[in-house]
Amino acid sequence: MPRVTFIPDDVSVSVETGESLLRAAMLADVLVTASCGGDGTCGKCRMVVERGTVRAGQSAKLSDAQTAAGYVLGCLAEVVEDVFVRIPVESRAGAVPLRGGGRHPNPILAPEECAARVADSGSPPPVGKRLVRMFAPSLSDNASDLTRLCQTIRRDHGLEGVTVSLPVLGQLPAAARKGDWTVTAVVAELADTGLWIAGLEPGDTTARQFAVAVDVGTTTVEVALVDLTSGAVVAREAEYNAQTSRGEDVITRVIYGTRPEGLRELHELVTHTISVLVTSACGKAGVAFEELVCYVAAGNTVMTHLLFGVTPANIRTSPYIPAATEFPCVCATDLMLPGGPSTQVIALPCPASWLGGDIVAGVLASGIPWRDELTLFVDVGTNGEMVLGNKEWLVACSCSAGPAFEGGGILHGMRAAQGAVEQVRLDPGTLEPMILTIGGAKPLGICGSGLIDLVSELFLAGAIERNGVFATATDSPRLRKGARGPEYVLVFAEESGTGDDIVLTEVDIDNLMRAKAAIFAGISILTECVDVDFDAIHEVIIAGGFGHYLDLERVTTLGMMPEIAPEKYVFIGNSSLLGARCVASSKGMLQMARRVSEMITYIDLSVNAGFMETYVSATFLPHTDQSLFPRTEKLLAERRALKAVM
Amino acid sequence: MPRVTFIPDDVSVSVETGESLLRAAMLADVLVTASCGGDGTCGKCRMVVERGTVRAGQSAKLSDAQTAAGYVLGCLAEVVEDVFVRIPVESRAGAVPLRGGGRHPNPILAPEECAARVADSGSPPPVGKRLVRMFAPSLSDNASDLTRLCQTIRRDHGLEGVTVSLPVLGQLPAAARKGDWTVTAVVAELADTGLWIAGLEPGDTTARQFAVAVDVGTTTVEVALVDLTSGAVVAREAEYNAQTSRGEDVITRVIYGTRPEGLRELHELVTHTISVLVTSACGKAGVAFEELVCYVAAGNTVMTHLLFGVTPANIRTSPYIPAATEFPCVCATDLMLPGGPSTQVIALPCPASWLGGDIVAGVLASGIPWRDELTLFVDVGTNGEMVLGNKEWLVACSCSAGPAFEGGGILHGMRAAQGAVEQVRLDPGTLEPMILTIGGAKPLGICGSGLIDLVSELFLAGAIERNGVFATATDSPRLRKGARGPEYVLVFAEESGTGDDIVLTEVDIDNLMRAKAAIFAGISILTECVDVDFDAIHEVIIAGGFGHYLDLERVTTLGMMPEIAPEKYVFIGNSSLLGARCVASSKGMLQMARRVSEMITYIDLSVNAGFMETYVSATFLPHTDQSLFPRTEKLLAERRALKAVM
Repeated sequence: MPRVTFIPDDVSVSVETGESLLRAAMLADVLVTASCGGDGTCGKCRMVVERGTVRAGQSAKLSDAQTAAGYVLGCLAEVVEDVFVRIPVESRAGAVPLRGGGRHPNPILAPEECAARVADSGSPPPVGKRLVRMFAPSLSDNASDLTRLCQTIRRDHGLEGVTVSLPVLGQLPAAARKGDWTVTAVVAELADTGLWIAGLEPGDTTARQFAVAVDVGTTTVEVALVDLTSGAVVAREAEYNAQTSRGEDVITRVIYGTRPEGLRELHELVTHTISVLVTSACGKAGVAFEELVCYVAAGNTVMTHLLFGVTPANIRTSPYIPAATEFPCVCATDLMLPGGPSTQVIALPCPASWLGGDIVAGVLASGIPWRDELTLFVDVGTNGEMVLGNKEWLVACSCSAGPAFEGGGILHGMRAAQGAVEQVRLDPGTLEPMILTIGGAKPLGICGSGLIDLVSELFLAGAIERNGVFATATDSPRLRKGARGPEYVLVFAEESGTGDDIVLTEVDIDNLMRAKAAIFAGISILTECVDVDFDAIHEVIIAGGFGHYLDLERVTTLGMMPEIAPEKYVFIGNSSLLGARCVASSKGMLQMARRVSEMITYIDLSVNAGFMETYVSATFLPHTDQSLFPRTEKLLAERRALKAVM
Repeated sequence: MPRVTFIPDDVSVSVETGESLLRAAMLADVLVTASCGGDGTCGKCRMVVERGTVRAGQSAKLSDAQTAAGYVLGCLAEVVEDVFVRIPVESRAGAVPLRGGGRHPNPILAPEECAARVADSGSPPPVGKRLVRMFAPSLSDNASDLTRLCQTIRRDHGLEGVTVSLPVLGQLPAAARKGDWTVTAVVAELADTGLWIAGLEPGDTTARQFAVAVDVGTTTVEVALVDLTSGAVVAREAEYNAQTSRGEDVITRVIYGTRPEGLRELHELVTHTISVLVTSACGKAGVAFEELVCYVAAGNTVMTHLLFGVTPANIRTSPYIPAATEFPCVCATDLMLPGGPSTQVIALPCPASWLGGDIVAGVLASGIPWRDELTLFVDVGTNGEMVLGNKEWLVACSCSAGPAFEGGGILHGMRAAQGAVEQVRLDPGTLEPMILTIGGAKPLGICGSGLIDLVSELFLAGAIERNGVFATATDSPRLRKGARGPEYVLVFAEESGTGDDIVLTEVDIDNLMRAKAAIFAGISILTECVDVDFDAIHEVIIAGGFGHYLDLERVTTLGMMPEIAPEKYVFIGNSSLLGARCVASSKGMLQMARRVSEMITYIDLSVNAGFMETYVSATFLPHTDQSLFPRTEKLLAERRALKAVM
């Protein structure tokens, strides 16, 4: 990886080839003015390349003389080799770097690890195409078409006891003869629950088979279109779950589902959302619906019920019983999802009412079921779910975090999509921000990671008190009294993509604090239940729909996560989607998902005596018990001291 | 059984209580004039009860004086105890009884034997209701509804690995709570191919569960509605297959099915016929469609394909390949058959293109798979099928007999339904007939057994030559030259239920002779193939849609069956329907049906060098080789001698 050294600060950081100089500065904690999010329009993030060269970076915002002198716009310049870069005075947002050394980007639990595990499993997709080359019948070999098909599948693929549906049998005589006794069978191998031919095509069409991995989130639905022959994701789409129009959180949806037609409505809304995403993904990748062999859906228990149109009503009232924890495999067309008649839908199993297939998928994607070491998996979404364990045992709990981390309940919140502010650094003196948006687009709103960054920065700069209100003594044009009370302006209207100011309110801060407190309390209870110290945890894997640049140190700054050694934290992104991808590619992974679901011991926080107290103690920045966060307290002291001397 | 002695002939016969005196006379070969079929309207079959009493028999056709003198009408008088009956001169059709001793009715392989075998199998129906009494959930026992259901089914019924469809899962939460954790599950246990819950109802509804056994014949479709709690048939209906409008025989149907929309049309015609019959049967028995748990269909291979809407086209052209020999279980509603969403359809397996599930059902109903002794099973329908073997091995063949035995291709032929002439005796001198119809109704036409009786009697009386044409020398007002050539008038218009004469033509005789020749040739080839003599056969079981009074001796008279000792012949009636009933009642029977289908070695007569020669030799009465039928020849000589002296 090429190394970028910033002078005069003399801090350096390694980044991926092609990364922008602005992103490198962000990672190195070198503050640069940058208010357009990275699309080159504000022209403020000027830098001078003193040694080495960068790719691009030129802009009409720079004069010819500047360009000749080596000036580039940091957001547009791509790192391709080791460079020394000077930040000119006019671009400086802050006086000095806040930390001496540059940091690496978050370690990311890469999809490649999953891909390797899928390959190791050595098993075919749970639903996939098989080439069937039959011998032509004769008077002396006059077995029926179906017997011939099944015999050949047994001989060539080792599959015993295959069954077919009537529509498939109906297609067989013509397909076998049209393909001159070579057909492609879509075979569903759901291990314990059956082995059947879901579809049939004449000739060899095995080169074209795709699966849709779906993360059915309460707030956001994301799909990945997977080419099963290569394992590659050929398109990826995300959108808010259309059910949000019927309620922000899971409980509201469950209640809505008890209305007449409410269940049908919620079912249709989520399948509509998925349909739109799949239609778009297939369009972009040039994939026909008939080439989809399978959907693998991972969602929380309520979302999985609603996807299948099964009432989740009894989850809400004591004794909190789901209709099912394992769902039958059905045809996509039965759920009104895009697909041919052979397209199957598999849901990941949901171990408990409040622990769903999304978490099973995440645990799978994290590799915990293959690990000896104690690992903590935390999925931060509308609900916070935590799983602690290794390949021998797993305990889990969940708590309601609210939609803050996915942009919900935040005035200018948005999900981690194009234009979302995902990284923020502030000049602790002026509170001038340095922001980066997803896709380098004009800022449209703030996603989860941006929100964590922003509140952390404001807190460290002393602009937010420990109880989550703005410090009245702060003097900055960006901190103002708005119609909704005190607020901080992250992006002024002229720089934003919406044409309006993008602000942070005290209500937003309060929502974030409740959410982080719930997460912290959940983790605390979980470790208490199995009687382990935070230090015994070998790795903490953070999942969720944040941007990819979630600053994992910030999650401890806010007190959302315990102060486990920073190098133990890794980020995995949308692990629900990743796990669903794994399952779509390997029936061994599906079997492991079922095993995980059965292994998990679920701890119900709603009947846990200590939870509420632990939660309330955590609704402070970082915590009412400051001794739990010595590193944050030290950082806070340093920052405030620094500010005082400025 | 009460005994009826006819005087002055002094022949006696035992009959079932409730049987008519006329039927007893028929069995005893005592000829009585009787031309109305048994409905009391002709008033000719007068008899005098000399000792003992009968039930009913009075009629306005008798004068008060006659009634006082003990006269009754034989067709209306029911036997209830031993009686002596005198046939007055005016009722006599013939001079003397043709044989000294009375005969018993055909030994019938009774449904009771099947019922006993079903009971012995000790297994529940393949699709049947199970009572599931679950423990109510609690905070400490919070398994999902589905897990609870499956656990209870495992505990109480020993069923492992039950799966559910999505619609059933959708019903579960409400049904479990409505039934206060007691539900009735419709469980399908198809052994090798799966175990699933097809339907669900709150509370205990196990007392109401019915199955429909269907014999899907090329010419006739028959259904029996079976109460699965008692095993009793609560209604039975039959009708011509509506497909006959698209072709009389199987080949014509196969060709029709290759037209655009032809397959769909044939599928809809047969399901329409079944629907009409089931609707009628359910109406009569007060059964709701939702109470039907299963259809078990037995049909030949082409009919089974058409029932499922799968093309049978490749059965017709070399190398004669069916699409399938085993058909998937489907929902009745998928085939547009009456039923609830849980009603399943099971087809009996079809071992070969020309040997179908009807024969597998017949072999099953005959009990051959449980026998040590060598048994010949012959099903006489539109096709003739023969199976020879025992519990160790089975060989089979089939030949096209044409529809004659089901009343097709016969000018006044009809199926064995109300009003069909099913028994005929003739005065060998005058050719005056004594007839009995099914249900004792006015005659409407002639069914298979009536046709065999009639042609046999005419042949024995010398009115039909060995080559099947009417003997020109015969002098009888009933033998005349009609518009269609020579014909015999069985019923004159004034006695018939149609208002027209019911006649037998030479074309009818020719059709019957081809049919019987095909059957005889098939049986001959089959025994030759396995190198056994006719005498080695322990029992011959005759199946087919004849009336119940088929005279088994007559089948050898015509040369349709070899002259095996008469007591070795038994009649089983519609064994296809009977086998389907067995399977509907016992999954063990379904397993045995599959075993039978796999055990059978099929001998293809179309590629058999000797068949055509054997067939042509048999198109004579009884055969070109008279030495094969010594008993018939002896009878013929006796009858003709008797006639000569009259």
